[in-house]
Amino acid sequence: MTPADVRVVLVETTHPGNIGAAARAIKNMGFSRLYLVRPREFPSAEATARASGADDLLGSATVCESLPEALSGCSLVFGASARLRTIPWPLVDARRCGELAVAHPGEVALVFGREHAGLTNEELEYCNYLVHIPTNPDFSSLNVAAAVQVVAYELAMAGGAGVEPGEEKDAPATADELEGLYSHLEETLVQLAFLDPGNPRQLMRRMRRLFNRAQLEMTEVNILRGVLTAAQKAAAGRGRGNR
Amino acid sequence: MTPADVRVVLVETTHPGNIGAAARAIKNMGFSRLYLVRPREFPSAEATARASGADDLLGSATVCESLPEALSGCSLVFGASARLRTIPWPLVDARRCGELAVAHPGEVALVFGREHAGLTNEELEYCNYLVHIPTNPDFSSLNVAAAVQVVAYELAMAGGAGVEPGEEKDAPATADELEGLYSHLEETLVQLAFLDPGNPRQLMRRMRRLFNRAQLEMTEVNILRGVLTAAQKAAAGRGRGNR
Repeated sequence: MTPADVRVVLVETTHPGNIGAAARAIKNMGFSRLYLVRPREFPSAEATARASGADDLLGSATVCESLPEALSGCSLVFGASARLRTIPWPLVDARRCGELAVAHPGEVALVFGREHAGLTNEELEYCNYLVHIPTNPDFSSLNVAAAVQVVAYELAMAGGAGVEPGEEKDAPATADELEGLYSHLEETLVQLAFLDPGNPRQLMRRMRRLFNRAQLEMTEVNILRGVLTAAQKAAAGRGRGNR
Repeated sequence: MTPADVRVVLVETTHPGNIGAAARAIKNMGFSRLYLVRPREFPSAEATARASGADDLLGSATVCESLPEALSGCSLVFGASARLRTIPWPLVDARRCGELAVAHPGEVALVFGREHAGLTNEELEYCNYLVHIPTNPDFSSLNVAAAVQVVAYELAMAGGAGVEPGEEKDAPATADELEGLYSHLEETLVQLAFLDPGNPRQLMRRMRRLFNRAQLEMTEVNILRGVLTAAQKAAAGRGRGNR
């Protein structure tokens, strides 16, 4: 990544002051892109006051209706989590988050949740990694702008070290390409009678977890979707044959 | 040092909200001692509100008339400096500050200056080290609570607060289980007419690369083989139907 590849996504932030403080932290650390998913109050004089000179980031912020919309184009997504074992998902601390982000060849999103409730499990499933900032176990809830500050700081620090990615890679798949794959997979598994829509259990969550971990390339998504289409044709052919 | 040996000293803070936010950051990072040198307004309802549960630190804060008074008993003092060469003084970044503090056998002070003017040169001379947080050169003035957050975070990290990367995992798949999967996959792709055995190109190599990268668990191999078996049944059903 370059600094221009990094976006910070704030989900349903309640206090506009926190949006302003986050914008300031982002700009201080050398980044510039802010996405707001359903902010309660924006634009806001309080956000501008707390941005304290980073109001250009507020002016260019992208306001979105949903998290997937805010992640469009991103191929590596980190979701901040105060709890260590929310869901069984790859977990890194902020330092490792910085290293992974800097080594990544595509666009990176850092996602931060609501002041009191954080991110939902459903939102965390859009993430390749949960990122955890170690805190006092008896007083663990960081202010959202403070969390943005620490994670952005770690990206800036890791950027100074200049990590090169380890191998030649194809373009990474974006979040929307992955969502297309997951929808296609689910549809196919139902047609193959491998997934019962009335009793889906953990199957799709497990599949997402596996493929998120692999950080798929665009070409790989295309190959996998080709396989799914071939399986769908087979399932449809069987349907005709049996009638 | 132990966490109880660390004090954060705020000098002539103007906005009580920043005192509250700093208290929250200090407590979040597992520290507890706050010293205030000539705060403009303290105690303050705004400080309490922004402390958001760290009001015990505000209640036990020591208010001082001078910086030397606030440093009494400390044997290692760091002074935050936004500028890199304020005075020719030993300079460290926040990470090195954390390492030095953790290795120090006595009491440690972290000193943060005024919102707009920082610390004076005379105040910096009480410090063993200046501590600098790398920032965007065009927008370098960190909010004082954000600076406290980053430095306290680095002390906590140096103290061993980092999380081990990873997650609860099932047993990893063995090499022979993976080979079983790859054979099964190849056989199925041929049956789906997605892979031409006469012209296989790079398809299986790409699939191996993807799944090796994901470091599959045994359960995941079993799920994937279940999917392949369902696809094989579909392909066989179509074969019969077409004849």
